[in-house]
Amino acid sequence: MHTAPIAVLGGSGYAGIELTYLLAHHPRARLEVVSSDRWVGDSVAKQLAISGKAGERVYASFDEAAERAKECAVVLLATPAEVSAKVAPGLLAAGCKVIDLSGAFRLTDAGVARAYYGKDVESSKSDVAVGAYGLPEFFRDEVVDAKLVANPGCYATCAALALAPLLEQGLIARTDLVVSAVSGVTGAGRKATEEYGFVAIDQDVRAYRVLAHQHTPEIAQTLQRRVESSGGPIDLTFTPHLVPLARGILSTAYARLAVQASSADLTAALSKAYANEPFVTVARSPNDVSLKQVVGTNRCVIGVACEAKSMGRVVVVSAIDNLLKGAAGQAVQNLNLVLGCDEDAGLTQLRRFHT
Amino acid sequence: MHTAPIAVLGGSGYAGIELTYLLAHHPRARLEVVSSDRWVGDSVAKQLAISGKAGERVYASFDEAAERAKECAVVLLATPAEVSAKVAPGLLAAGCKVIDLSGAFRLTDAGVARAYYGKDVESSKSDVAVGAYGLPEFFRDEVVDAKLVANPGCYATCAALALAPLLEQGLIARTDLVVSAVSGVTGAGRKATEEYGFVAIDQDVRAYRVLAHQHTPEIAQTLQRRVESSGGPIDLTFTPHLVPLARGILSTAYARLAVQASSADLTAALSKAYANEPFVTVARSPNDVSLKQVVGTNRCVIGVACEAKSMGRVVVVSAIDNLLKGAAGQAVQNLNLVLGCDEDAGLTQLRRFHT
Amino acid sequence: MHTAPIAVLGGSGYAGIELTYLLAHHPRARLEVVSSDRWVGDSVAKQLAISGKAGERVYASFDEAAERAKECAVVLLATPAEVSAKVAPGLLAAGCKVIDLSGAFRLTDAGVARAYYGKDVESSKSDVAVGAYGLPEFFRDEVVDAKLVANPGCYATCAALALAPLLEQGLIARTDLVVSAVSGVTGAGRKATEEYGFVAIDQDVRAYRVLAHQHTPEIAQTLQRRVESSGGPIDLTFTPHLVPLARGILSTAYARLAVQASSADLTAALSKAYANEPFVTVARSPNDVSLKQVVGTNRCVIGVACEAKSMGRVVVVSAIDNLLKGAAGQAVQNLNLVLGCDEDAGLTQLRRFHT
Amino acid sequence: MHTAPIAVLGGSGYAGIELTYLLAHHPRARLEVVSSDRWVGDSVAKQLAISGKAGERVYASFDEAAERAKECAVVLLATPAEVSAKVAPGLLAAGCKVIDLSGAFRLTDAGVARAYYGKDVESSKSDVAVGAYGLPEFFRDEVVDAKLVANPGCYATCAALALAPLLEQGLIARTDLVVSAVSGVTGAGRKATEEYGFVAIDQDVRAYRVLAHQHTPEIAQTLQRRVESSGGPIDLTFTPHLVPLARGILSTAYARLAVQASSADLTAALSKAYANEPFVTVARSPNDVSLKQVVGTNRCVIGVACEAKSMGRVVVVSAIDNLLKGAAGQAVQNLNLVLGCDEDAGLTQLRRFHT
Repeated sequence: MHTAPIAVLGGSGYAGIELTYLLAHHPRARLEVVSSDRWVGDSVAKQLAISGKAGERVYASFDEAAERAKECAVVLLATPAEVSAKVAPGLLAAGCKVIDLSGAFRLTDAGVARAYYGKDVESSKSDVAVGAYGLPEFFRDEVVDAKLVANPGCYATCAALALAPLLEQGLIARTDLVVSAVSGVTGAGRKATEEYGFVAIDQDVRAYRVLAHQHTPEIAQTLQRRVESSGGPIDLTFTPHLVPLARGILSTAYARLAVQASSADLTAALSKAYANEPFVTVARSPNDVSLKQVVGTNRCVIGVACEAKSMGRVVVVSAIDNLLKGAAGQAVQNLNLVLGCDEDAGLTQLRRFHT
Repeated sequence: MHTAPIAVLGGSGYAGIELTYLLAHHPRARLEVVSSDRWVGDSVAKQLAISGKAGERVYASFDEAAERAKECAVVLLATPAEVSAKVAPGLLAAGCKVIDLSGAFRLTDAGVARAYYGKDVESSKSDVAVGAYGLPEFFRDEVVDAKLVANPGCYATCAALALAPLLEQGLIARTDLVVSAVSGVTGAGRKATEEYGFVAIDQDVRAYRVLAHQHTPEIAQTLQRRVESSGGPIDLTFTPHLVPLARGILSTAYARLAVQASSADLTAALSKAYANEPFVTVARSPNDVSLKQVVGTNRCVIGVACEAKSMGRVVVVSAIDNLLKGAAGQAVQNLNLVLGCDEDAGLTQLRRFHT
Repeated sequence: MHTAPIAVLGGSGYAGIELTYLLAHHPRARLEVVSSDRWVGDSVAKQLAISGKAGERVYASFDEAAERAKECAVVLLATPAEVSAKVAPGLLAAGCKVIDLSGAFRLTDAGVARAYYGKDVESSKSDVAVGAYGLPEFFRDEVVDAKLVANPGCYATCAALALAPLLEQGLIARTDLVVSAVSGVTGAGRKATEEYGFVAIDQDVRAYRVLAHQHTPEIAQTLQRRVESSGGPIDLTFTPHLVPLARGILSTAYARLAVQASSADLTAALSKAYANEPFVTVARSPNDVSLKQVVGTNRCVIGVACEAKSMGRVVVVSAIDNLLKGAAGQAVQNLNLVLGCDEDAGLTQLRRFHT
Repeated sequence: MHTAPIAVLGGSGYAGIELTYLLAHHPRARLEVVSSDRWVGDSVAKQLAISGKAGERVYASFDEAAERAKECAVVLLATPAEVSAKVAPGLLAAGCKVIDLSGAFRLTDAGVARAYYGKDVESSKSDVAVGAYGLPEFFRDEVVDAKLVANPGCYATCAALALAPLLEQGLIARTDLVVSAVSGVTGAGRKATEEYGFVAIDQDVRAYRVLAHQHTPEIAQTLQRRVESSGGPIDLTFTPHLVPLARGILSTAYARLAVQASSADLTAALSKAYANEPFVTVARSPNDVSLKQVVGTNRCVIGVACEAKSMGRVVVVSAIDNLLKGAAGQAVQNLNLVLGCDEDAGLTQLRRFHT
């Protein structure tokens, strides 16, 4: 079967490694180019114990790989936002399609992008045709046609999947949204600091970037796009927390009922919205959602309940693997849309560990 | 120095063990009676490696200990709510003061108590002079005079310390309060089930009892008591989560500004409220609060920030050790008030582990 | 492509769940029957989130499944030793091939088997044609021809793979062998006891069954079969330890040099022995072996070093995933041999988590 | 009561922090000087949340503290070996007593010291009167009289306490000793590297410095000093392993019976040897030793068993907290001997966490 040549830039970061594993077993895509300045000259087999063709690939320097990537059908950028902002225009000009896992192209408001990602990211926005926001469950058609796909943030994916259908169906109010989420440590990327040392993280939990995290405007932007603009702006507060785990995000979102509805009504609304989605599962209750159901997979599991009263509080719990549905898995889902193959290609054999 | 004779009923539960350690090194109290049906006949030294007089105590059966406890000045009940409800009246009748660590005597509304703890608890309420709610930072004077002290719940302590001063000073609105908290597994008490097995809990996070946890009315009751009743009812949503740690609670509370205020104003308000409190520390920012600062100690650390706009969102992060400030430590703090000795007696040498 | 019908008895234990996942993606075998008394009536899809044909299978009671299994080509027993001992003869009589993951058929000496597994296991030995010991790297030819395959123990696999080639090549002495190994908690199977509760296991390490573990004679038996009987008996001490992890075994084996040899010589000897083995990797040094290299895979990684002196001490470190190469993965490897398909069928897409 | 002025150099390393906590609650010693280049100018209260006099101390630069330390009765060095080697002579010359927690002064053979710690350490040996090796259970009298105390290594403490009495009483052979131990990550000191990052360490176990760890000659030296030199040299192999925990060492030592003896005989021999030792507890069996019994305390727990045959294998399991009995706790024990106060002063209120 024909396979499309794919490049991965940033192959030794956590998301880059996941991409490499996923592409190694993908039926319709083949890893052609992969960069890593730290592993340059080593084979993928040596670093990741991957057998077969993908294992034979040799890590190239970023500069060399960025050049060779121009021959590939699709380039996956697992690079920092400022690097993605810099390298994407040239790849697009060379005719590649680009899926960027960083935050460089996610925010449509240049001022907001600059505020959260710095001026290098903002200025790049004007240079490239802004493409699709790659949350397939909501923007599938745009992704299919896009030259540039901004792969969503991990928290943004988890929270938007939980809240958007309820907003869209008018069940909850736009104001008064709170998202309180916990994440494993890989969400922060590779670190060689004492702050991310085992002794510092182990046995600890803390909130970080309170009222200042860059996924706040990203979640709000997605939710805003899913509702009538006439209904006023989304008002959202988001707090991320670090827990002593490597992988996984569990988000607990709070809203107010906008109409009379029961927990069963809300669950039904989610079930309807995701009836044909291979990667979203609706649980019977928010008590039935847990990290272990999703870690190792590209799935999102969501459960909802509400108070049985007018304007009662709604609680939506959702979970994803931050490196899969929150990064590399979703990037492959987008890749599949771009390539026109089955949306779950390369993603069906992922599994959670029961243990 | 004179020491008061103390009984601990329920000595082999997590809170009972903590009480035993604390009493073993208490300058003004001595462990006289301790019950444990599972360890009956064993010495405290054997089970807990405690030296000195406390180590020489021998675990008695519950029935025997409950009888002998009547000779003690104060009885600490580390028993399930229904057991506390049953045994407390007799102890009070015998002239003992009682500090109950269960939920049996916390809720003043009998209907609410029955709804969350069952009818045995509710019916007992009418039999005893309802005493003080033992959150010393707010109700110190009542505790000093009480015959029966209801030691607060762990989540309830953590959340109420975070929110009450801001409500009391009119800085935040009573409506629209959300508390999202994570807890270590000891919060659930000793369990011999697969659900609390290592393999089930390890690497997992989940919410539980969503919209149904018994600490919800307890938090609301405390907050309500701290504000003018004319201002309307407290509207609070609380979601507890389980994280794979043994000890510690981190609570993230969300509210709305009721007046124009900055993060610095809110921090100052907390600092003022707790200026003379030995066990509450106000951090510069919610980002500076973490479990490790409190686990192993009787401290609560609190940090707050808000959006710089009218009716902006307020985020208050607070942390305690669920078995100390959330249970046994606070019980000793209450014991000290009851005995009339220094409020921090027996609690000053507790330490966090930096590692 | 033709697929062979397979039955799994004991489908909701840790090994049974792993078998189900592996069979769900196996190119030449299909899950036809699966038992679980706790999940009877539920689909595999519901319990394990497995899609496709395997997901459609419904858990049957043990008795029903044991009957229906007789129609299958191969029956995988993920049952306790006494159950395996009881059910295997009937399945063999019905013409099935049987791969047993318990200890029921591993030990060839009936007295030793009885001593470690009880008299039910021993008495069953005489009823069945004793088949192969399913460590393919050493006994591949026997497995191919066997009707009954005794799938090795997890520790036994890890230690035997480390030591056997060095013994076989006369590089280390048979006497004075010590194996000190640590294992994750799934090694003990599902437990609903306080002893295996999260709070008990977390932050703890301990040795167990010191000088009394049932894998001791199993390791010795394997090593003995790999050397000339004239050289005297194997003398082995084995100590297992429990660490607060779900999965993985790391074994550190100690021996004495029997001839003049360097660390490089020993590494070369292992490399030669495993040159054509898809699931065994020889590391450059024992310092380069770690659990993360193997957890999630069917691999064993081994590294060796020795003191540079006559009769110097040899240290061999090896690692496996106790539920894969130590149980279900190896069972599938044996299944592949029994079915005559590629030995790595259904096992190539397993991956470790880099994170 | 009179308190002796104490200096701690290296106050922000893991051992330095533990020393600070211990001295803060010591009845006969007071923290007078404490160094930390990273925390210079901050109070101890700010960094460690310690109240009272010790909390008021302000961290000084190393150079300033080293100078001011000369006024103290005892200087505790929690510094790297090369720093200790450099600074100790001047402190001794100024009349201070010195307790060094590094490896600088532990090894009596200069060549061995040089091989493991480098030439700076070896050359310093000739400059100072070599003092006592501070394992009080074996060398108490020397410590009492010493000007310089070399505080033992963590693994060395744990292994020597397990083996020495059995060797001394002629119960086990000197040859054929194997020590296989696991340690928490604080044993490696503070690190800001990816290798010690949470994601790298979590869920992993590995051996390190196989056949090359610096505690190997230290253990051998201690054991050799406890036996008649006529009996030949100690032959010891030691392998350390890293487990994903912050604190604690569990050592499993293997030996051969030198005489006919039972497990009960060996247990009795240990019990006799440690009958009057406040910090050593003998368990009924090696299966009864676990990390949780010791972490947070200055205790060592030891259990032993053997094969019931001539020259049978002996297994001795022992556990300590690597930062307390393996570092700071033992340093305070030595300090107490040097000061002539109760050996357990400042160490009695330490407790393990049952949870």
